[in-house]
Amino acid sequence: MSNWSSVDIEMMSRAIMLAERGRYTTRPNPCVGCVIVADGQIIGEGYHQRAGQGHAEVNALKMVNESGLTAQGATAYVTLEPCSHYGRTPPCALGLINAKVARVVVAVTDANPEVSGRGIAMLREAGIQVDVGLLTEQAYALNLGFMKRMKTGLPWVTVKVAASLDGKTALSNGVSKWITGTAARADVQKYRASHCALITGVETVLIDDPSLNVRFESLGELMTRLSPNDIFQPLRVILDSRARLTAAPHLFSITSPILLVSGCEYSEQVKALFPPHVSFLVLECDSLGRISLPALLTYLGKTANSVLVEAGATLAGAFVAQNLADDVVLYQAPKILGSHGRNMLQLPDYTSMEQTPMLQLIDQRNFGKDQRYILRYNKSY
Amino acid sequence: MSNWSSVDIEMMSRAIMLAERGRYTTRPNPCVGCVIVADGQIIGEGYHQRAGQGHAEVNALKMVNESGLTAQGATAYVTLEPCSHYGRTPPCALGLINAKVARVVVAVTDANPEVSGRGIAMLREAGIQVDVGLLTEQAYALNLGFMKRMKTGLPWVTVKVAASLDGKTALSNGVSKWITGTAARADVQKYRASHCALITGVETVLIDDPSLNVRFESLGELMTRLSPNDIFQPLRVILDSRARLTAAPHLFSITSPILLVSGCEYSEQVKALFPPHVSFLVLECDSLGRISLPALLTYLGKTANSVLVEAGATLAGAFVAQNLADDVVLYQAPKILGSHGRNMLQLPDYTSMEQTPMLQLIDQRNFGKDQRYILRYNKSY
Repeated sequence: MSNWSSVDIEMMSRAIMLAERGRYTTRPNPCVGCVIVADGQIIGEGYHQRAGQGHAEVNALKMVNESGLTAQGATAYVTLEPCSHYGRTPPCALGLINAKVARVVVAVTDANPEVSGRGIAMLREAGIQVDVGLLTEQAYALNLGFMKRMKTGLPWVTVKVAASLDGKTALSNGVSKWITGTAARADVQKYRASHCALITGVETVLIDDPSLNVRFESLGELMTRLSPNDIFQPLRVILDSRARLTAAPHLFSITSPILLVSGCEYSEQVKALFPPHVSFLVLECDSLGRISLPALLTYLGKTANSVLVEAGATLAGAFVAQNLADDVVLYQAPKILGSHGRNMLQLPDYTSMEQTPMLQLIDQRNFGKDQRYILRYNKSY
Repeated sequence: MSNWSSVDIEMMSRAIMLAERGRYTTRPNPCVGCVIVADGQIIGEGYHQRAGQGHAEVNALKMVNESGLTAQGATAYVTLEPCSHYGRTPPCALGLINAKVARVVVAVTDANPEVSGRGIAMLREAGIQVDVGLLTEQAYALNLGFMKRMKTGLPWVTVKVAASLDGKTALSNGVSKWITGTAARADVQKYRASHCALITGVETVLIDDPSLNVRFESLGELMTRLSPNDIFQPLRVILDSRARLTAAPHLFSITSPILLVSGCEYSEQVKALFPPHVSFLVLECDSLGRISLPALLTYLGKTANSVLVEAGATLAGAFVAQNLADDVVLYQAPKILGSHGRNMLQLPDYTSMEQTPMLQLIDQRNFGKDQRYILRYNKSY
């Protein structure tokens, strides 16, 4: 269908806006929004807030009922194809059928190729008109990580870098505090809060000893609509190929989960020293003795929709060089650190422009005096 | 005076806007605008268009006369203190006195410390009320180069760089076409057209052989109000410390003036091969055998208000490292060239953030997909 009415577009836009409200709380589930419209008026709306709680359609239908109205003959706008399976909740397609809606407009079909289209088929079999494809791109963008993981088993990979205008993350002696300002650093907190896992390297832990957690008090306007309990702490993944780490670094004292990934086992004595929120994983290494990043992503993809790489130039560069990154998010400060400074991404020695990373600029905005660039590979999942 | 009326502010703003029209054509003279107001109405206005032609005040008074009006009792708004000396034209202060204006509002006093204040004194001696200091900063910004040269004898120095997001100007093998897009490259043409001289190094000439001239057809909207004859071709200054150049490079075939600066004389045989628009200058070198940049700027400051450095990382970096730059203009493309790429500015190995260049971001805007940053040293002249 391509001739959408202005009401269709308005209502689906609202459903997308509602879905967006779940960004920090639904994972590992997708963000979904639903608007139910009768005679051009919204009679119910809702969004998915948390895994295990009501889906968007359920919440919207509940609002209709609580208002003493009926969804019979109404149109439901949903950002994602209604589910067709019995999980922790009954299938949403069934809920819409039981409510006797006349039409369902779907922005995006289910990401899982095994069930994609089944919810729509269930609705159509019940005699409901189903129109698919309104604001697809915008609705897809709500759940890039979920979509990629459903289709490929791998998480969405965002590589975060903070650098000067001349692309340096630190002086040659490692001095880097602070390149970017408070507004940019607060935005990094939001990035962390929206990702399932953070990845860093043993060198960063040993040298910088970052907390790599989400600090609620740094979340800006999010604090006005979320409580500290709403915030997920991302899994902190530390690559330590030669199992060198001990429990000494500060970040182990913060009790959100940590996964230590090594190429060989830690000794039992050392393992016993780590606190209980630390778990261990041994993965294969490549010929250079580095943890296999494809193996890592395959493992993390079992549970994580999205990972944020906050690492030094070698590890961050490896994700880009091995074509495993989806986004590069660059915070750039209006400073010049000089040619001896540390490069932001260690990459191969390219000999033609065609070999350089084929990133597209998709967003650019100011955070205080700094600039944030979101660069994306043109991959389709 | 600090209690300016809204009419004062409006009229001086207009005078500044008029002055701006002369940006590409007045040099080595400053840009100056003048608005003459009687009973709140503009009765004459003008700006300085070209050296040797009428000053702003003369043009504005001419407009008053040609309209059959009189400036007697009027207020004249001038962006720069009216001149008090007989040059190619009579003193503008005298013109205003003869026109019997009642009040003169001046944004900026004369930059030349030897004559600064004399025009104002001349007006006041004739019984005219003179108010100084309205929109001073904005009016000063019209003539940064002229002001600096009058006060210090040195030209304003702008270092131009085009680089990727990771601060690289080329791949390791020198491939650099094209990092930035057409809009950014067109803006460089305007930068060239507004500067008195361009500075580059022998390596850039030998490797890239750039034209380093202004191409009228690349000047965008300027073409609609300027003709090719209005455009100055900046003096092309090439630093060739060891006198290695011959007349072979393409840029010598373009007939705008070139100054070859070397640390030793070219042989007479080689000199004879250069076309007549090429002249020669021998300057002292520093301990590393490089042309003394302070000596170069002192020489160029005799005639040039402003110089644009379009050079490789070594020469461009030297202007920054030696604290000789006023502006760094960076065109940045949303690309990543990688850690092996060429750095944009060769600078010392800084060990603390305080040692890095103390540049302030004063302007930032998009040119197509590229970003232009203007970074300025907080120097006062």
